[in-house]
Amino acid sequence: MNAQTIAGSPREVRELIRSNKWRGITSGVAPGHVQANLAILPKELAFDFLLFCQRNPKPCPLLEVIEPGKVEPAITAPGADIRTDAAGYRIYENGQLTAEVDTIERYWHDDLVSFLLGCSFSFETAMIDAGIPLRHQETGNNVSMFITNIATTPAGIFSGPMVVSMRPIKREQVVRAVQVTSRFPATHGAPVHIGSPQDIGIRDISKPDFGDPVEIKADEEPVFWACGVTPQAVALNCKPSLMITHTPGKMFITDQRDADYAVL
Amino acid sequence: MNAQTIAGSPREVRELIRSNKWRGITSGVAPGHVQANLAILPKELAFDFLLFCQRNPKPCPLLEVIEPGKVEPAITAPGADIRTDAAGYRIYENGQLTAEVDTIERYWHDDLVSFLLGCSFSFETAMIDAGIPLRHQETGNNVSMFITNIATTPAGIFSGPMVVSMRPIKREQVVRAVQVTSRFPATHGAPVHIGSPQDIGIRDISKPDFGDPVEIKADEEPVFWACGVTPQAVALNCKPSLMITHTPGKMFITDQRDADYAVL
Repeated sequence: MNAQTIAGSPREVRELIRSNKWRGITSGVAPGHVQANLAILPKELAFDFLLFCQRNPKPCPLLEVIEPGKVEPAITAPGADIRTDAAGYRIYENGQLTAEVDTIERYWHDDLVSFLLGCSFSFETAMIDAGIPLRHQETGNNVSMFITNIATTPAGIFSGPMVVSMRPIKREQVVRAVQVTSRFPATHGAPVHIGSPQDIGIRDISKPDFGDPVEIKADEEPVFWACGVTPQAVALNCKPSLMITHTPGKMFITDQRDADYAVL
Repeated sequence: MNAQTIAGSPREVRELIRSNKWRGITSGVAPGHVQANLAILPKELAFDFLLFCQRNPKPCPLLEVIEPGKVEPAITAPGADIRTDAAGYRIYENGQLTAEVDTIERYWHDDLVSFLLGCSFSFETAMIDAGIPLRHQETGNNVSMFITNIATTPAGIFSGPMVVSMRPIKREQVVRAVQVTSRFPATHGAPVHIGSPQDIGIRDISKPDFGDPVEIKADEEPVFWACGVTPQAVALNCKPSLMITHTPGKMFITDQRDADYAVL
């Protein structure tokens, strides 16, 4: 089975993952349902990280925070287990990637707090539904991501620059792209910048810091959205003794529908 | 000086308060600027309370959280001092109101975390601007507030029923009232219920649990919004050793404009 053939409700997909029958990239899986970035941190950092997310809702849109030691996302995925139901996990110790694992039961302890953060899959679906094509999807690439000179609002030990994703949008569709994504504040919301990459500290738009380069055509503007890479980058800056994340592309699939998070 | 005659920018009004020249009800003061409910709690409760607000954004719309021991709302009112710049404070010890004071310097210690929460003044201004009259303002009364059977989502030690405010709205303006208030999620946002008070556990609409009764005319529906009394009531339920709030009606005035918090 791969991402193209796997089907089912979020609960069924999580069951396939938990029983080790499938562990693929989750893009397009359980369509219409909200997928989440995962960041798991020791309790001593949890208040500062929660505050960082509260102060920076565009890069860090919180879907759910699971209380210390608890493993069930009772609000967004009742019955699920955060230790086993993402398709892959990364273990960072003192800011260094030390392992990539299928489940995190052996790293788990009662002092860990799990943060589920919105991802751009939800608003990309809305853009495509609105007739706005996304080149990185058409070419099968990862979206271009850049470290900017836009400072996040610090909280406690957490601070750092905002990371953005960039999508080239036809000039005649830029207004519509703003409108469509504004409806999804829980998944990064409206763009943070339109046009001139230099204005936000990006020197070379053809050389992303993360992801793949993408062509910008003459009738297009680069449009920039706050990116879920920001909270992970900011947290790792602080070199926490332990931080667990999902493996990029292998998101945690919640039971919530994209539509549940749309405003107006 | 009273609320009718005081004028000035938020900074000027806070300076009058700080220098003890004025301490009135803040309704209508520094019009167009966001006023905040205040809840100050010991650090040991701060993570749970922050999480409670994150899980219950309609009754608990966070404007800013000031880090432990800090007194400046650096995001919403740079230069202000949370200990002196609200027009009045209430001191609760072990869940009991023990004092009402002008400033809280003598209660302050480095372990306190200050939460600023949106208040309904912002969306009431927007409703009046949209041509939707508010009877409690016309009659000079406090809004009617009720304890409902709508449960909040618990977080740690915090749980309890949602408190709502009720405003009678002409049936032909109910849709507009939903639209207008939906634009202000940072100040309670869209209604939580329209019509039948019984459906949300209110037995007698003429007997509010807080505030004043208000007439509902034949061509009106009662419309209910999540109320900022909820977080205070929920926090006091837990009988924290110390909790400090503003005095009702004497809000903390921020530098932010209502328009800054409008979505779409």
